[in-house]
Amino acid sequence: MDTGRIALGLAYDGSGWHGWQTQVHRHTLQDTLQAALARFLDRPSVATVCAGRTDAGVHALQQVVHLDTDAVRRDESWVRGLNAHLPPSLRVLWARPVSADFHARFDARARTYFYVLHCAPVRSPILHGRVGWVHDALDEIAMQDAADLLLGQHDFSAFRSAECQAHSPVRTLDRLDVLRQGDFLVFRFCANAFLHHMVRNLMGTLLMVGRQRRPVAWVAEVLADCDRRRAAATFMADGLYLADVTYPRAPELPLLTASQALAQHMGIRLPW
Amino acid sequence: MDTGRIALGLAYDGSGWHGWQTQVHRHTLQDTLQAALARFLDRPSVATVCAGRTDAGVHALQQVVHLDTDAVRRDESWVRGLNAHLPPSLRVLWARPVSADFHARFDARARTYFYVLHCAPVRSPILHGRVGWVHDALDEIAMQDAADLLLGQHDFSAFRSAECQAHSPVRTLDRLDVLRQGDFLVFRFCANAFLHHMVRNLMGTLLMVGRQRRPVAWVAEVLADCDRRRAAATFMADGLYLADVTYPRAPELPLLTASQALAQHMGIRLPW
Repeated sequence: MDTGRIALGLAYDGSGWHGWQTQVHRHTLQDTLQAALARFLDRPSVATVCAGRTDAGVHALQQVVHLDTDAVRRDESWVRGLNAHLPPSLRVLWARPVSADFHARFDARARTYFYVLHCAPVRSPILHGRVGWVHDALDEIAMQDAADLLLGQHDFSAFRSAECQAHSPVRTLDRLDVLRQGDFLVFRFCANAFLHHMVRNLMGTLLMVGRQRRPVAWVAEVLADCDRRRAAATFMADGLYLADVTYPRAPELPLLTASQALAQHMGIRLPW
Repeated sequence: MDTGRIALGLAYDGSGWHGWQTQVHRHTLQDTLQAALARFLDRPSVATVCAGRTDAGVHALQQVVHLDTDAVRRDESWVRGLNAHLPPSLRVLWARPVSADFHARFDARARTYFYVLHCAPVRSPILHGRVGWVHDALDEIAMQDAADLLLGQHDFSAFRSAECQAHSPVRTLDRLDVLRQGDFLVFRFCANAFLHHMVRNLMGTLLMVGRQRRPVAWVAEVLADCDRRRAAATFMADGLYLADVTYPRAPELPLLTASQALAQHMGIRLPW
């Protein structure tokens, strides 16, 4: 039979998972999805490629994967059939046949992450594990000023974890916006791609400015020095969401904007 | 030493708990709070009385309890000390000394519950357990019309579980509002008090109207018949929140409005 390529849209609550990528003897999202695919398609194994390999504890509002199969199913059958084999913390949102040269990772021209931060004296039990938390007052104007210094193409070595496997530390940060919505601060990061722990390291560094422990200009110095030891500690994964992936060559995929996805899954509405 | 009365404000994620009230060999919120109090105060046991005994799976944005103790602590010490002995799904938000005749249950003149319902083709993994879910289209205008028929003082036997221990089935429903916020419908229930499963039974019945399986007027017939078998099945607990308690005699308690509490804990902002 002919083999066709299928794209799937996924959302997940990453708390309690050891990240996206397959690991021996670990509870990972990729392994769980692939096991569900194997059962649904009645195949010994099914390989997948994703747009962004999220780390332990990181969530997705819109993750995209592709896979090849000779099975033919209606789009809704993929969604219902796979969800029947998946835990509630991982859901298939949609499925679409795509051309044989579509590639979930290499065709992705940009990724958008949100960091949702709760600012409150006591950590809320309601969104525990799904938002970051600080009890300090934060200066979001200073954080936006600092964020503006990070925009553009740079060597982001200062914000790259020691385990990062990327060939180059150069990335292009197209947007870094800070928006207050009541007791929440939502940070939007848009880049062609991200280094390992890059968003969490940028968050830690922006929070040093937001807490007025460092001046705005310090962020530019940290970036220019390309020395991970100068930046702040990696901030907690809890509030980090892969929110959108941009595929210029596959406009047929039913992706929402990042803000639409946040409103749909959490009810937090942004003016973006 | 003199004994003083303390009021505590609590929030909790009720999923995974067997409800508020003490039960032998069960994981309940009251038992867990009382164990934390006993450790914090170094007493063999500490009794508490709450405003509303929430069922298994039901959450609280603002629950109020009182307790008597000869211990003297600063308000912030109660909060920090108790939270150090509590799991992340149960938090003390504030503590205040109150007069010896304050009673968390009997002084509460009204309770407000929210039901947060997610309307989406696929159940979201992000708010799993914290919102109710329907995949059908709902007619919220019809649901509001039906809700209006339930307002006022009535015998709510049709919406009362078989296990309800209340002496009287008569309650006064002051408000029942349905508001759409994007993919979410938020239902606000305000009454002097609620019967066992009353909100979840009302939700199930309103959803019959919202799905256009029953006409609006059917709700008035169900209410008038006082027969539990005529109303719809009990709807899932997942989206139910004790959101506010009204204490006219204790204006010093730092309670938010129900809508403020929802915005603070979930980021969902209502125009109420």
